[in-house]
Amino acid sequence: MATQINSNNNLVIMAGGVGSRFWPMSTTECPKQFIDVFGTGRTFIQMTYDRFKGLIAPENVWVVTSRQYAGIVAEQLPEIPKTNILLEPCRRNTAPCIAYVSWRIKAKNSKANIVVTPSDHLVTDVVEFQRVVASSLKFTSETDSIVTLGMNPTRPETGYGYIQADLMEPSLSNKEIYRVDSFKEKPNLATAQKYIKSKEYYWNSGIFIWSVSTIVNALRIYEPEMSRIFEDMLPIYGTDKEQAIIDERFPLCENISIDYAVLEKADEIFVFPANFGWSDVGTWGSLHTIAPTDAQGNNVIGNNVKLFESRNCIVHTTEEKRVVVQGLDGYIVAEKGDTLLICRLDEEQRIKEFSAE
Amino acid sequence: MATQINSNNNLVIMAGGVGSRFWPMSTTECPKQFIDVFGTGRTFIQMTYDRFKGLIAPENVWVVTSRQYAGIVAEQLPEIPKTNILLEPCRRNTAPCIAYVSWRIKAKNSKANIVVTPSDHLVTDVVEFQRVVASSLKFTSETDSIVTLGMNPTRPETGYGYIQADLMEPSLSNKEIYRVDSFKEKPNLATAQKYIKSKEYYWNSGIFIWSVSTIVNALRIYEPEMSRIFEDMLPIYGTDKEQAIIDERFPLCENISIDYAVLEKADEIFVFPANFGWSDVGTWGSLHTIAPTDAQGNNVIGNNVKLFESRNCIVHTTEEKRVVVQGLDGYIVAEKGDTLLICRLDEEQRIKEFSAE
Repeated sequence: MATQINSNNNLVIMAGGVGSRFWPMSTTECPKQFIDVFGTGRTFIQMTYDRFKGLIAPENVWVVTSRQYAGIVAEQLPEIPKTNILLEPCRRNTAPCIAYVSWRIKAKNSKANIVVTPSDHLVTDVVEFQRVVASSLKFTSETDSIVTLGMNPTRPETGYGYIQADLMEPSLSNKEIYRVDSFKEKPNLATAQKYIKSKEYYWNSGIFIWSVSTIVNALRIYEPEMSRIFEDMLPIYGTDKEQAIIDERFPLCENISIDYAVLEKADEIFVFPANFGWSDVGTWGSLHTIAPTDAQGNNVIGNNVKLFESRNCIVHTTEEKRVVVQGLDGYIVAEKGDTLLICRLDEEQRIKEFSAE
Repeated sequence: MATQINSNNNLVIMAGGVGSRFWPMSTTECPKQFIDVFGTGRTFIQMTYDRFKGLIAPENVWVVTSRQYAGIVAEQLPEIPKTNILLEPCRRNTAPCIAYVSWRIKAKNSKANIVVTPSDHLVTDVVEFQRVVASSLKFTSETDSIVTLGMNPTRPETGYGYIQADLMEPSLSNKEIYRVDSFKEKPNLATAQKYIKSKEYYWNSGIFIWSVSTIVNALRIYEPEMSRIFEDMLPIYGTDKEQAIIDERFPLCENISIDYAVLEKADEIFVFPANFGWSDVGTWGSLHTIAPTDAQGNNVIGNNVKLFESRNCIVHTTEEKRVVVQGLDGYIVAEKGDTLLICRLDEEQRIKEFSAE
């Protein structure tokens, strides 16, 4: 890790998600990335920003989010320039999001080297994380490569996509980085078990590293129409006109993920298999797995929560709320504002049903 | 029932309880008698007042309560004169409460005829209730008798006291009224079952009817010290000085129930066995028994409560709160202000433990 921050390094935090699986803690008004799920005083997006400190200068940190979250982002990340908060007028998946911010960065620095990360994941070993990211940034600054971070799978998880590495082909300049053989959608359990056994598969963390010229060129090849929209805007990035034109043209972009649009098609795709205590914390259950629990397996957030004869529960509430729970085993008790949810942890896949108005 | 209200009829509503068994709906700040438990728009004390309409004039309705509830009583019962709200400076059980209000009424009308009632019970058949009370008032206006209302027991309830009637001795002037043989404390289950079988026992409703001279004379005999305190105050009842003197002298009274002080000792004690759909609603369980439930046995108060796969639950919340409950059987979910309780219904006797700060 460099002690002098490379001024070409840029960070893109994608923060447009709505986190519906964490209802009622996560709501459309304040989705998961803006919540302090662990009660540490830092929200997911703040923890995401924090783990790049020393690698990327604050003025090179970009957030792409929905227009309605502009205020929350500015409030939670006061260190970054407000003009670095890019606002999507509508949701169009990750490819348009990445295209927009890539051209925006290119307009400022054509030598930029970029890390793209989700805003609502957890990393527990930040030292190792920084080593892996710094090593990847060095690699992409010297090659026209796209690097994905692949997580060493610790269980046959069916909730993640997988990356198959060609372990016979480490790259020449970085022996920890391998060519990607294929990307796999979320598998069923039997397939996931096969993946684990073969030792060639890694969880797709959704963290990507590339130079701005690499990603822009890839988008020009695989998404020419989308690319034209953002290329045409080159003269007005950073001006007063940017938002109005984005509001007009962004909705014309195809709704497509960067995985599908570029990663699965491009040639120079690599994976850096790594171990830095990563979780997408995509469900209450995953939170229960990673968050600290008491001797009875309860994970409690809230200053005034008392449990009697309760086990394997997640109890999340606000600081002020007084909560007494007796005789529950394996439940979620989540209370926020004017909403209370009590449901079996093993029924959490139905939260969308429960939260329907 | 008289169409012309007898101006000697007085009603005493005892409203000093703290209703700790209904936490968190009932709190020291706003105990059970002041809560709209059924979501009907009327609180227990308001329902209590309502069921005497036409029998007792509003200016003859008295409420004895704690000083801290003066404001709530005045707000919830705007029909009665504020000077009829008597404030106990401390809790001293029912005998001092009844002594105070009895001398207070005597100072105003020595011919007064009085019904004393708890403020937090439920009566479903108000027509029959009024018939029984009117009949009892007629009886006590003509005799120096104390009448208790005994409820026909429908189950071997161990949470109530019982009154044993001498069914061979109906009174001469009212064939529905019998001499009391004995008062029984809350029995164990086997004893309660014996009571039911014998058909001589009735639940003690805590509703008493007597003339002011009868109760004052009885207190003079059985509680001479206590009686002297209130007798001495005769010149200042209804004056500016009343509250200050009460604050000084009321705490000197013995802490004793009217049952123990008078009823169990006096001679002319009668019981009127009756059936008017009575419950003391003393526990969440009793509420669950009497309140309307859906097909799955759930009793729900709250405008925005959704239940999935839940049975035999009590869910009580405020109007504004959105609550989703999934997969609970036999639980209380009660939410009020900044407090939430979730516990098994069959563990509700531990609510004091749960609610301890």
